Parts: sequence; structure tokens; C-alpha cells
Amino acid sequence: MALGELPADLILKNGKIVDVFTESVFEADVAIVDGCIAGVGSYDKAKEILDVQGRYIAPGLINAHCHVESSMARPEAYVKEELRWGVTTLITDPHEIANVMGSEGIRYMLKAGGHMPINYYVEVPSCVPATPFENSGCIMHAAEMAELLKEEGVLGFGEMMNVPGVLMGDSEVMQKLRTYQEAGRVIDGHAPCVTGKQLQGYISAGINTDHEIISWAEAKEKLRSGMAALVREGSASHNLKAIIEGVVREQVAVSRMAFCTDDKHLADIKREGTIRHNIKMAVELGMKSEQAIAIGSFNAARIYGLKHLGAVAAGYQADLVVFNDLVEFVPWRVFHKGQDAWKLADEAEWLEPGARLKGSVNIGGELSEASFSLEHFSATKTYPVIEMVAEEIITEHGKIAGSEIFEALERNELCLIAVVERHHATGNVGLGLIRGYGIKNGAAATTVAHDSHNLIVVGTSPRDMLLAVQALEGSQGGYTLVEQGKVIDLLPLEICGLMSSAKGDELNEHLERISQKAYTMGVNPLVDPFISLSFMALPVIPRLRITDMGMFDVERFQFIK
Amino acid sequence: MALGELPADLILKNGKIVDVFTESVFEADVAIVDGCIAGVGSYDKAKEILDVQGRYIAPGLINAHCHVESSMARPEAYVKEELRWGVTTLITDPHEIANVMGSEGIRYMLKAGGHMPINYYVEVPSCVPATPFENSGCIMHAAEMAELLKEEGVLGFGEMMNVPGVLMGDSEVMQKLRTYQEAGRVIDGHAPCVTGKQLQGYISAGINTDHEIISWAEAKEKLRSGMAALVREGSASHNLKAIIEGVVREQVAVSRMAFCTDDKHLADIKREGTIRHNIKMAVELGMKSEQAIAIGSFNAARIYGLKHLGAVAAGYQADLVVFNDLVEFVPWRVFHKGQDAWKLADEAEWLEPGARLKGSVNIGGELSEASFSLEHFSATKTYPVIEMVAEEIITEHGKIAGSEIFEALERNELCLIAVVERHHATGNVGLGLIRGYGIKNGAAATTVAHDSHNLIVVGTSPRDMLLAVQALEGSQGGYTLVEQGKVIDLLPLEICGLMSSAKGDELNEHLERISQKAYTMGVNPLVDPFISLSFMALPVIPRLRITDMGMFDVERFQFIK
Repeated sequence: MALGELPADLILKNGKIVDVFTESVFEADVAIVDGCIAGVGSYDKAKEILDVQGRYIAPGLINAHCHVESSMARPEAYVKEELRWGVTTLITDPHEIANVMGSEGIRYMLKAGGHMPINYYVEVPSCVPATPFENSGCIMHAAEMAELLKEEGVLGFGEMMNVPGVLMGDSEVMQKLRTYQEAGRVIDGHAPCVTGKQLQGYISAGINTDHEIISWAEAKEKLRSGMAALVREGSASHNLKAIIEGVVREQVAVSRMAFCTDDKHLADIKREGTIRHNIKMAVELGMKSEQAIAIGSFNAARIYGLKHLGAVAAGYQADLVVFNDLVEFVPWRVFHKGQDAWKLADEAEWLEPGARLKGSVNIGGELSEASFSLEHFSATKTYPVIEMVAEEIITEHGKIAGSEIFEALERNELCLIAVVERHHATGNVGLGLIRGYGIKNGAAATTVAHDSHNLIVVGTSPRDMLLAVQALEGSQGGYTLVEQGKVIDLLPLEICGLMSSAKGDELNEHLERISQKAYTMGVNPLVDPFISLSFMALPVIPRLRITDMGMFDVERFQFIK
Repeated sequence: MALGELPADLILKNGKIVDVFTESVFEADVAIVDGCIAGVGSYDKAKEILDVQGRYIAPGLINAHCHVESSMARPEAYVKEELRWGVTTLITDPHEIANVMGSEGIRYMLKAGGHMPINYYVEVPSCVPATPFENSGCIMHAAEMAELLKEEGVLGFGEMMNVPGVLMGDSEVMQKLRTYQEAGRVIDGHAPCVTGKQLQGYISAGINTDHEIISWAEAKEKLRSGMAALVREGSASHNLKAIIEGVVREQVAVSRMAFCTDDKHLADIKREGTIRHNIKMAVELGMKSEQAIAIGSFNAARIYGLKHLGAVAAGYQADLVVFNDLVEFVPWRVFHKGQDAWKLADEAEWLEPGARLKGSVNIGGELSEASFSLEHFSATKTYPVIEMVAEEIITEHGKIAGSEIFEALERNELCLIAVVERHHATGNVGLGLIRGYGIKNGAAATTVAHDSHNLIVVGTSPRDMLLAVQALEGSQGGYTLVEQGKVIDLLPLEICGLMSSAKGDELNEHLERISQKAYTMGVNPLVDPFISLSFMALPVIPRLRITDMGMFDVERFQFIK
């Protein structure tokens, strides 16, 4: 068929081919057979001919690092939005669900995403739980991680967040890394601000990529040191501008760069896409369109060893996006294995998650109003206070005298905050204080609480806090708001307490609605009512956090007694 | 050791690192441990510190495609010259020896090269013999080629010269390609002038590279089609200028380009090196030094899937070349796995080839003067004549009346030429006529005769031709000159009739001497006495050739009766 002697399944006629090898454009047709590209040139014989009328035929885009669960949509819903904007390959790290449900959760993501018309790859989460200072739903050891190597769709090893463990040569960390290295797989890094000799040590352990780069200087050091730089543009992290400005200014080679989103909300993806948005931004910053597309496709494929993906050339899988132009990068058609990906996605059946996945919220012990009572605080002692910082996820480390807590709560200057262990019904509750959240006469709670995803609740009264916890136990996860003894809203996230079962737009609409309600209840307009809250439990980001085991001083790496 | 806490084996201090990832240079030390790079940065603790005094530390160079046998030196001697000029990785195709001795020859090359301080990789020859129109020493089938996949050092599949076989989907060709493709190995192409749909078809069969590119237009088409372009600069083929001028003019991405030599004589390598010469030429044509080095190292490593090679970064094998400058590119030191490669090469023991390898010349039948007699020509018929073309290896198709042969020989306008089967003592002799060689009153003969390496002899009298054949049978291969009934020179090439056993400079000196003698005997100064002769037997290059089976019309693809 490449010779043009037999009819192809489909010919895309009259295209401008985005050539990611030389980073240029040329005119040709694309002949497709059995899901592969048979030839690029002048072709006429086919069962079906689609005239693209001079539009640009680019390789399907690759999102090199993303967390599907962070969208709160199920894999199927997430994939549909990615396809809409031209992404045909996802490299995902199911770190969130693994903290709730371990391998069972990872396998669900692989299956649910894997039957959609997209290349759905998983980097097996390397750090579950992320720290020993919290109780997650699951502890994954090296043997279990090795077992997952056999699963179809498992590509490599997820972001290695345990930088000290790597640098100290911790034996279990080394064993995990060795397993994936010996299998020839790509190991993702997570090395914010790691530079100099520490970076050399981290890389020596066999770690290949980093997506936590925030400046051009950092990008250059990491590239020079042999890492692939995944340039991130997500909902919260905006790193593309700084890095691409450097690339354009210094005109360096980009073959070791890819684009990613890490965490991006579904509403943002709907509005602007993922990798398409990164490409558009890069071009607006002065990068050549073809080079930006190469970063968003072929370069990512090479970094991850995906030899059959990322180019419009004979022998490659026929994953294609047809753009109207190379300015706005709006997809006109998207193909997965030579078929209309949008149509296939609309027709795809959704995988119903099993009962265990929808029954992940298990609260035990004798939870009562007393669990959140002020009686836990002595008037003669001083207590730490999490001070939220506007528009940031870091926190400051405040203090309050025990004798002043009651009045500060009355004046709405302070809230109670608690993390309730919700996986194994241990009854663990960590109770503390937070300033800067702002809710009045009520409580907000969520089962999305990085990275162990216990239940986190913030409020002004033990009664409303208890009610919020009970409401989320009832719904098996989600976001909720309680006002003066009444549940006024509840967004169910019943898949592992992380993702909605919704199939349409109701998730986005509900998210918008419940956030607005939270603000009307007094939540500080400079914080996100639920997303900011979900990070208050992450004991790796300075300075003060709360887990189900208590208030944690991140800088001293210890609990505050 | 990357952390600088424990001493490294060796530190190269005060270097300028050639960063092949971004294609730039920065100042740093390189710490080496256990043959690997532990870290690049500021290092002080080591068993040994070598101050490179601001010189440039680049990755060891990679010759992406070469035929060691074409140098007529044994692998050890060839490797020493490559190391001298900074090449630390060879990707070789032992096509010549395979035509004489099959797998046994390939295994000898792997062993002899493999114990030298270089990464010695083999692409298994795909076409042995190259055509069905000659009798080679060995016929290699798909099963034997698959067996070789298990050998350490076997990287992929050698240049697929059977373009028609690929395009027609010949079942054995397809089986061979599939074996290497399914093993995830790189398959080298050989596609001179193959373009358009034929190129698409050729690539669709899974062929990854081409080193036969002669123009920028061809390079661009092949790169766009997904092939890696191996830019060749050898003794006979000078393709670099045309291609690199195009790259510099159009400023295209080069990550899918590598440098190679294909066939390069030892004397030329001694004088200017291989990949070092390609790099120097590219820089003289306007390419940035760092980019040229990236093509000659990291890019080649990526094309061939050699993840541990081609960069100065933590985790990479410590194969390094220290250049005095990035203008002349003269190596100051070369390291293989962190050790002085020149010293190791000088100390290495040479592998003695077995008796069978040194006994490859077996001439049978009743060879006599009559085998080359004019009586084979009838006065009443017309005969084809190979017309040599000055400084080219193509030939023209001449004619002569049988009645005129004797006088033309007498006037030294014509020579007799013969190919004697020399592997299996079949007694096959192909006899013909050649114009433009020029030897007077004597004969020249060689057992190097592409690609089947039978014995080719040219001369003015049957007596001298017979003597030349007998002399080479006696020496078990080589080059020889016979003048008026006397062997006046003989350069032995007793390893498979292709390579010299010499260890020092005697090979080059002898080559120079025997060529000069040939010219004094009347050989046309515009042809090479032995190299040009060796191509007269290659039945794939237009227009007229001679094999042990007779005179062959390459364009009609048939013997001339």
C-alpha cells in the first residue's frame, strides 16, 4: 500500500505535514492502513478519502506527565477532553488513587483509560504513601511495584519524590529504582530546587526526567545534567513562560524537552486544552510552530521510548491531529490508530468501577462532636496555627495561646481543622487550628487531601464538622458544605473519594456552584475553598501541615506535641 | 560519589564540557567511578586527578556505519587508529568477511574487536551473498541471522541492499527483517536514489537508517520520511558537504542525523581520523561545533538505542575525548570506561585468527593457462568490454569484434579480466575483457573483490594471469603483481583473503609500494590499481561487471551469453 498499488483504508488528501524530524512543513497526503501510516506522499487509492483542504497534519500530541484523578473526572471523561484538544497519548501517574487503593486503583485506571481511543500509559507511583507521617489507604512495597511491570500499559516508574531517600541510598528506594532501570523503563523525577551535587546524585540513581522545573537556569542545569525537562503548564503551576523564554533567547536544542500539565482541572482543559495550550503559549513566546509541536509529540515519544508514536511518517501509528492553522492550534479532526477519535470516544462504553472502589470511605472509632472539641486545647499552653498564604500552597507557622482560642473562633479569626483517617477505620483524628480560611458558621470538608487522601474538615463548630464528616461518609467521598447544622451542598466523588461518576458536564457545574457557595459562607476569596484545603494535609510542603497523626512541622520534619 | 562525599576513581579537572543536550559548552569537572560518570560539577576527591587545563571534554565519538575489513587491517589495528582520533564506539557491518566465512567470520570480528578498549558493535550483514549472480563463500539464511541476535555486541541488522526484494515483499527478506524488528533492533538501510513511494515502501518494511544519501534534497526527503540520515565521508564517497551545506542553510533540527565513514582506508584514517574529520568539515561549512559533536556522538547513540553512550553526564559510560580546541578537534586524551584508551589499546593482546580464517583461498578445477586463453573468443562474434571510467566505480558497456581482440591486446588497448571462484574450489572461471585499466606485460590480482570476494585478475597474458592466481593461492589471499613470468610483489591478506595479519605500519607502507609499482607497469593513473579492480566484480553497480559466472549486464540484470 505504501507503493500506492493497493487501496489504503483512509487517505488524508492535500495536507501540510508537520515534519517533527527536521522541524518544518511540506505538502503531502497521508495513506493509512490497519491503524498505521503506510506512506506520506501523493496517494489516491483508498476506501475513504478525506480532503483536509490544506490544513496541517501533525502527530497526535503527548501529555508527558499528568494526574487524571486531579481532574476529579473519571478516566473516560478526562480522556474525552484531552482528545478534544488533540492529545492522543497520555503518560499518567495514578499517584492519588494508589494512595487510596494501591494496585487495585492503578489497575482500574489502566482499564478505564485503556479502553478509550487513546494511548493510555501509566508510570507506576513510586512513593505510596508519600511520607511516613500519615496513614494512607495503602502502602506499596517494591515487590508490588515490580509486579505491576507486567501490566500492559505500564510504561515506567512515577515521580520519585523521596529525594532524601535517593541521596542516602535507602535500600528499598534503591531496590524499586533498580527494578525499573533493569527493565529499561523511564523513571520520572520530582526534584524541585535540587541542584549541584545533589542533582548529580539524584540522577546517578537512574532518574530520567523532571517536571518540577520553575526557571530557565534550573532547566538548563537539569538538561545539561542529562535529565529530560518536562515543561509544565497546569492549573496551579505555570512554568512554561520562564523556560521557553530561555530556550528562545539562547536557541538551544530541544530534543530533550517535552510538554506536560501535571495537575490541570477539567474546566481549564475544556477551555484551552492541555498540550495544545503549551504549544500555543510557546509559539506566542517566539518559538517556531514546528519546533513546539515536536516538543509536544516526537520529543516526548523519544524520551519515553515510544518508538511507534509521535511522527507523521510510514510505520508510525496513525495518531494524528489536523489543525486549522499553526497559530490558534484548534483541532479540526483527531485520529487514533487511523480512526476518528472523537466519534470513537463518544461511542465508547464506560467501565463501571467495582464496589470496593466506590466504598473507600471507612471512618471508625467513636467519632463524635467531642473529637473536634475545644476541650482538646488547654488554656495554659500555646498552640501552633497553620497560617494560609494568599494564592500559594505554602503556609506560615503561627501560634496562639490556649486561652485565646475560644474568642478567636467567636470572632471568625480562626477555624478548627481536622484530618480524619478514612481508609481503615482506625479512628485517628488529627486536630489543629488554621487562620486565613475564613468560613463562618459552618464547615467545609473533602476526601481529596494530598497525598494520603484522608478526610480533611475545617469549620467553626464541632457539630458542623462532625456533620460534614458524616455526610461524606454517607456519600463515600466528595466535597461538602455544612451551615448551622445543615448540609447545604454535597458534590459526590464516590470513586475512591477522588473522582465523580458523572458522565457529562454536571461535575464542572457542581464544582463551580459549591465553590461559590463556600465564598458566600465567608471563605477567603484569595484561597480555593476545596483545592487549597486539600493541600493542608500534604506534609512535604513548608511550613506547617496537619495529618491524621497531628500537626506537623515540615521544616523540622517532626510532629508538634 | 556524585555527592562528592567519597573519592572518585578519576577526576578530569577544569574542563569545558561539550553539552550535547542543549548543544552548548560550560565549565566543570568530571568525576568518574567504575567506568561511569558519577557527576559533572565541582569535584575534588579522587584517587587520581587530571587537570585538563581548560580543554574541551566531549563524549567519545561514534562511527555509526563502517566496514572494518575495507581497511584491510585486522580489527585490532583498525580500532587503534579510530581511538587515536577520538572514536570510542564503532557500529560495524562485517559484510565482507561474512561473504567469505559467514557467522564464523562475524564471530571472529566480534571477538577481535570486542576485546579492544572500544564499544565494538555489529550490525549483522543482511545480504550474503549480495546477489544470486555470483558464488560467495557463504550463503546466510534467515535462521542463521536470527541465531546471531544472541551474540553479545550484535546491535542490529546490516544494510538491506535488496531493495527489490523488500518492495516485492520477498518472504525470506521479510522474515529476516521481522526477526530484527520484533527484537526491537535497528535495521540499517541501503537505498541509493530510492525516493517517492518506493522509499515509503522500503521504510514501511521497518528500515531505519540510510548512509547512501548524496544530496541535500535526498537527505531532506529521507529525514522527513522518518529515516535517520547517516552522513558519510569515506575514502571514496564524499557526501558530507552537500548534506551539511543544506542543514546549515535551512537550519533544520539534526537529532536524526549521525556521522559515518562506510569504507575508509587505514592511511586516510591515520592522516585525518574518521568522525573527527566529519565534525571538522561540518564546522568549516558553518555548523556550530557543539552541534557537530552532538551529531557525532549523542545523536548516533540515540538512533541506535545506546542509552548509556554519547554524553558527558552522570550515569553515562565514561567514554570521553578531550580536545585541545573546537576548531582542529585534535584529541589530547581519549577515555574508554574512564581509562586511558590509547594505553589500553597499546597493551591489548591481539586475537590470533584460527586456521580456517587463514585458509580461505581454495581454487579448484583444472586451472591452467588455457582458462584465460584467447581461444575462448571466436573471431566471428562480438564481445562485451568493461569500459572503466576515470575516478568512478561505474563502468560503461563497450563492444569489440572477436577478430580484433588479439591486436587490441598487443597494442595494450585492452586487457583480459577473470574472476576465479576461490571459496569452494568449484573451478568456476568467468573470463572477459576490460578497457582503461592499462597494465602492460603482466597481471594484477586480488582476493578482495566485492561483494563475494572471489579472486579477480586482470592482465595481458594467460601465463601471467595464471601465475598471479597461483601466487595468491600460495599466500592465501592478498594483492599481487606479476611481470613477464615473475611475481614482482605480493601483499598478503591472509585473514579471509581480506585483511593483513600485520600489527604495525607495514600494511600501509606495502600498500603504497605495491600501488606505485602497478602504476609503473602502466596502470591508468586515474584508477586505483587494486580498489578499482575490486569493484569490477560487484554486480549491483552499472553497467557491466564480471563474476565467476561470467560477464553481467547490470541494467538488464542478466548474464551476457
